Amino acid sequence: MTDTTATTPVLDLNADLGEGFGRWRLTDDDALLSAVTSANVACGFHAGDPSTMRRVCERAAERGVRIGAQVSYRDLPGFGRRAMDVPADELADEITYQIGALQVFARAAGSDVTYVKPHGALYNRVVTDAEQAAAVVAGVLRAGGDLPVLGLPGSRLHEAAARAGLPVVAEAFADRAYTALGTLVSRREPGALIADPDAVIARSVRIARDRSVTALTGEEVGVRARSLCVHGDTPGAALLARRVREGLEAAGVRVEAFA
Amino acid sequence: MTDTTATTPVLDLNADLGEGFGRWRLTDDDALLSAVTSANVACGFHAGDPSTMRRVCERAAERGVRIGAQVSYRDLPGFGRRAMDVPADELADEITYQIGALQVFARAAGSDVTYVKPHGALYNRVVTDAEQAAAVVAGVLRAGGDLPVLGLPGSRLHEAAARAGLPVVAEAFADRAYTALGTLVSRREPGALIADPDAVIARSVRIARDRSVTALTGEEVGVRARSLCVHGDTPGAALLARRVREGLEAAGVRVEAFA
Amino acid sequence: MTDTTATTPVLDLNADLGEGFGRWRLTDDDALLSAVTSANVACGFHAGDPSTMRRVCERAAERGVRIGAQVSYRDLPGFGRRAMDVPADELADEITYQIGALQVFARAAGSDVTYVKPHGALYNRVVTDAEQAAAVVAGVLRAGGDLPVLGLPGSRLHEAAARAGLPVVAEAFADRAYTALGTLVSRREPGALIADPDAVIARSVRIARDRSVTALTGEEVGVRARSLCVHGDTPGAALLARRVREGLEAAGVRVEAFA
Amino acid sequence: MTDTTATTPVLDLNADLGEGFGRWRLTDDDALLSAVTSANVACGFHAGDPSTMRRVCERAAERGVRIGAQVSYRDLPGFGRRAMDVPADELADEITYQIGALQVFARAAGSDVTYVKPHGALYNRVVTDAEQAAAVVAGVLRAGGDLPVLGLPGSRLHEAAARAGLPVVAEAFADRAYTALGTLVSRREPGALIADPDAVIARSVRIARDRSVTALTGEEVGVRARSLCVHGDTPGAALLARRVREGLEAAGVRVEAFA
Repeated sequence: MTDTTATTPVLDLNADLGEGFGRWRLTDDDALLSAVTSANVACGFHAGDPSTMRRVCERAAERGVRIGAQVSYRDLPGFGRRAMDVPADELADEITYQIGALQVFARAAGSDVTYVKPHGALYNRVVTDAEQAAAVVAGVLRAGGDLPVLGLPGSRLHEAAARAGLPVVAEAFADRAYTALGTLVSRREPGALIADPDAVIARSVRIARDRSVTALTGEEVGVRARSLCVHGDTPGAALLARRVREGLEAAGVRVEAFA
Repeated sequence: MTDTTATTPVLDLNADLGEGFGRWRLTDDDALLSAVTSANVACGFHAGDPSTMRRVCERAAERGVRIGAQVSYRDLPGFGRRAMDVPADELADEITYQIGALQVFARAAGSDVTYVKPHGALYNRVVTDAEQAAAVVAGVLRAGGDLPVLGLPGSRLHEAAARAGLPVVAEAFADRAYTALGTLVSRREPGALIADPDAVIARSVRIARDRSVTALTGEEVGVRARSLCVHGDTPGAALLARRVREGLEAAGVRVEAFA
Repeated sequence: MTDTTATTPVLDLNADLGEGFGRWRLTDDDALLSAVTSANVACGFHAGDPSTMRRVCERAAERGVRIGAQVSYRDLPGFGRRAMDVPADELADEITYQIGALQVFARAAGSDVTYVKPHGALYNRVVTDAEQAAAVVAGVLRAGGDLPVLGLPGSRLHEAAARAGLPVVAEAFADRAYTALGTLVSRREPGALIADPDAVIARSVRIARDRSVTALTGEEVGVRARSLCVHGDTPGAALLARRVREGLEAAGVRVEAFA
Repeated sequence: MTDTTATTPVLDLNADLGEGFGRWRLTDDDALLSAVTSANVACGFHAGDPSTMRRVCERAAERGVRIGAQVSYRDLPGFGRRAMDVPADELADEITYQIGALQVFARAAGSDVTYVKPHGALYNRVVTDAEQAAAVVAGVLRAGGDLPVLGLPGSRLHEAAARAGLPVVAEAFADRAYTALGTLVSRREPGALIADPDAVIARSVRIARDRSVTALTGEEVGVRARSLCVHGDTPGAALLARRVREGLEAAGVRVEAFA
């Protein structure tokens, strides 16, 4: 008799949602919600107005998709993609504010915020910046509830979260090239992005089943991930997310939220 | 033997706090917190950055001062003083967002948001605008917890709140002139503002004890109020608030929060 | 020998351009610039970031399209569609600021701002609100250069502009229904928007040639316009604008900027 | 007979003005305008609303004080004090936008923008960051008029400006400690700020007459400056600025704008 829970690979699918602002839209939230198990919802600092936040929370709750706070630098004009030297105290408070603003909509929808994931430049910064990583963790702690922190394995953010007793959840990227060291190839380098949908699906399956990916330079490198990030802000993104999910399930991977 | 609870007048003192933004400050929050029993905390839409919100919540909690969400139109450049034709759905969501953002700081400080009060142009608008009043109430309801709504007695806001089953709390103004009908004299008219501190204190005591005030035109008019608003954004405001409190207590009024 | 200039009808085609912000886009600026003769460029208050403003000005200048300042209430979250009670002094200064910010890009591109047109809720407000109309005119005057004001004929804005000695340019809408009085049918009423492209083109030609349009209630009403507004923010908008221009030219109308 | 122009030291006094926003005020603009010869006017990105910009320009023009564009990162919540990794193209456009917005008010007041000075974190960043320095210069160039760039001598900003053919103006700080190398002691180190007004005045005179200052470590170091920056955002700042000016004039220094 086999213990299937031990042998069935499990993976969460997360995507950024609600990244509009006022009149402007970016993501096809409804289509993405039919593909992912975790929704990183913009909280108003890089994108996300209150009405969009409410709608995304309501629809995520209806479909049983987990709601995470996609926290960012305060930078609407730059979409949170410009790294900022925010003092640690201010950054922590800005994180707490965003989580609180999302919690009220998640709870009104009968759900809750169940994890936190930094966005854009903040995500990249806290891979290596210990001070900002600690500030993000301080902001999460103040929001209460020991929210898991979704991010890059080995990042300063995960170190700080683990030290503070917060659960950490490792994520991988099926549409990004990896180096032989298992880190992401910079977007600025050639070959950094995997555009071919079939390749993205194949890589997703390998990450889930083999915990491995082929580096840009040809080596096999280990990649441990409980969640896979699919991008939502390009044309065809929702369709690709749907195909990744189907590919994973066809390969015997259980697609399931982590919390 | 007398039942003092029946005969001792009770009044809450509320003031606007945390009305700075980033580098800028307006109110002397610490001094005001030593005078009032309820703090209307700005939530980021007309004033109030996350760090200011955190600090005000922490200090209010330490002193046992109640924390209320001072909700506003989204208008930092105009300090929430420009009436806006916001669609009802958007306005409701903006109210919910602000309450949620404040709740997380209030709870982290060991307290909670215990009431809601509109600010500035929104306060004035919902005296007569039934649609926006209903939108504010919808936003409060969605935040959960049946939060009391502090406002002008007889306002559309209070009507809508009462209809929705929310507690309403009536407030009066000791430094504003009243008409013979018991409404406020417009700020634009001469005599609308009472500048003399002793007059403000005497009016406060009369509102608490006699439920009455002398109108600008000389008549005695009834004013029922469970809370008295003292202004915090003028020089000497904190000192005047302190003197009003002492004057009320010296006159046998129990100064106590309403919730 | 005939004087063709006297008999050939002339019409300007204007559209809103540059209505993105940061990451977000709304209008297909390049396609619209191949159709219109006047570009109403967003100046940062309801839409329009500096880089978008620069690009639109450069491309408009290359194509000989006139550049106008599309001035708005300061309301990014509401896209300038929420009427605001802005004090006249502040509103005038906000108008001046927007014109100045656009001028520097227009001039750097070898062109200039040659007219002003209010956007959204401000456009509607100054049809009837004399105080805000005067404030807009005051803001235009302060920017210097006696800039023509593009707007609804008979509006308070045009009255105030004419009184101040500014040129006024009347515009009409080929995709909006008119009342028997020659005013626009409110967007909220059925039939207010003309969706059929062929009808829009036919109405454009009639406005240009006959200075007339069929009202929603069937009457023929006079419409005088030197400029025709085509909408740019719907799918297919640029294509429709192109077809309107071709339809006008095929009907012998000279499509030409007004300034 | 002596050539006094050759021997009389000349110094400009510059200060940051108009650093309020909406309801909030920071600087006593009127008092500062009676002391300085050059006003660095906030343009709306870290501070400065349109009405404040207009008023400061009008009063500066009345008093013959030169108007400079105090350009900043787009960061109202952080008052432009948080360094940002803004892409060079966007940064250049943001600089141009701010200059244009100020020009329209300066010209309406019968004056003009006659120089540019970066604010806060941007000022510090372009001391060493060649890419952002070049972006600022590109933004200034696009605004036209070959505007002089006020900044730290030896900075990357001055190098880039000089390379582009823009005039550069060196400034010194009388209330900041210098290292033995002639650079500023970081604000975070003890002794970095000179609080004693008499010491500030004495240092101002030495900078003007001797082109020298005593370093924190005791050495005499050369400081060449055509402009001296006095701070405007502390209590007593305007009074100190006035005393610095009187001290300079009493010591035979001609206080005069540079442009």
